[in-house]
Amino acid sequence: MIKKIDLNISAKERNDIIARENHKLFKEYGLRVFNLISSPGSGKTTLLEKLADKLKERLVVIVGDLATTKDADRIKKHGSQAVQIETGGGCHLNAEMVRDAFHKIKTDNAKLLIIENVGNLVCPAAYELGEDAKIAMLSLPEGDDKPIKYPSLFLRADLVILSKIDLAPIMDFNLEQAKSDCLKLNSKATIMEVSSKTGTGLDDLTHYLIGS
Amino acid sequence: MIKKIDLNISAKERNDIIARENHKLFKEYGLRVFNLISSPGSGKTTLLEKLADKLKERLVVIVGDLATTKDADRIKKHGSQAVQIETGGGCHLNAEMVRDAFHKIKTDNAKLLIIENVGNLVCPAAYELGEDAKIAMLSLPEGDDKPIKYPSLFLRADLVILSKIDLAPIMDFNLEQAKSDCLKLNSKATIMEVSSKTGTGLDDLTHYLIGS
Repeated sequence: MIKKIDLNISAKERNDIIARENHKLFKEYGLRVFNLISSPGSGKTTLLEKLADKLKERLVVIVGDLATTKDADRIKKHGSQAVQIETGGGCHLNAEMVRDAFHKIKTDNAKLLIIENVGNLVCPAAYELGEDAKIAMLSLPEGDDKPIKYPSLFLRADLVILSKIDLAPIMDFNLEQAKSDCLKLNSKATIMEVSSKTGTGLDDLTHYLIGS
Repeated sequence: MIKKIDLNISAKERNDIIARENHKLFKEYGLRVFNLISSPGSGKTTLLEKLADKLKERLVVIVGDLATTKDADRIKKHGSQAVQIETGGGCHLNAEMVRDAFHKIKTDNAKLLIIENVGNLVCPAAYELGEDAKIAMLSLPEGDDKPIKYPSLFLRADLVILSKIDLAPIMDFNLEQAKSDCLKLNSKATIMEVSSKTGTGLDDLTHYLIGS
């Protein structure tokens, strides 16, 4: 009978149930948890390398990609644990994948879990993973029109990272317009300008993530 | 009975049936048709503005976005017809959306139809729209690792455009690695280096698309 009930709920409902279980589990481990979402190539993994340099074993990372384990390998070299989820073509992570990956992590000294979602501005925004908050990351080369063109993510993100900010002088990116559009979609969003290359904004971001 | 059969086919099968009908329709109109797929912000619409400058009424464009009609408006200003599909949150175009949009286009002088898909490297690759070929576009700021990390698109793309090539001197992007990875995934792919900003590669691309 229980099996029958399980089969009758939608994949989305099933995901949300597991996401709530994940959230409870993460709290038992005393972790702050963020779901990091952006387009491919906005600099998620490079940013995580920089955070790993600062936080070492206080940070653990779950990385989602369609294929390859390149990203987890990169982060591990910088001193934080990282577990890769290969979705095999799937366009977003779901709560079940994250639960299974989490059980492969040792969390003894960890305070912060960042889940690097599949590079995609659309689908990942619709799936709760058990996080405390979503982070939307937008790199300057992508253009200042992305918040209003991809509202589903920016409506749900507590933190917006404007990345590759070092490129501001050579990019035709209207920072004020992008920030204003983000705040129209979510008036409570925090917006940070960050460059993994120059280090701009990394200290503030680290404090935000650690909650200090 | 027919309705019952229709309901029993999957959404994917239904899409493929309509895509084949679209393809037949496009051939009746004498159109060459490309499905242009990339991440958000790789420069699809800017490139289409440049192609519209060159081709004017010989080019028609169907543009997909989650929200807003900004992109179609931009292209129309450059002299080509453009119709916007707002997917209302949907992460890719499907053949039915394209069929409906196509009927809003006047094709009297058109030779080339480009369908600008929703900015997403994953989902659009899985849905045939009735095109002759897929074009994958990768901008240098996204990084040279994207072909192997998003193989589903690069396996299926006949043409790979490496865009924003003007940024090559300041980006840490290994062109030879990216090209080699693209060719490992699809040995028959054509690869072009293009900059909408400087005009590099635009003539060659136009000839390729027009088939001249």
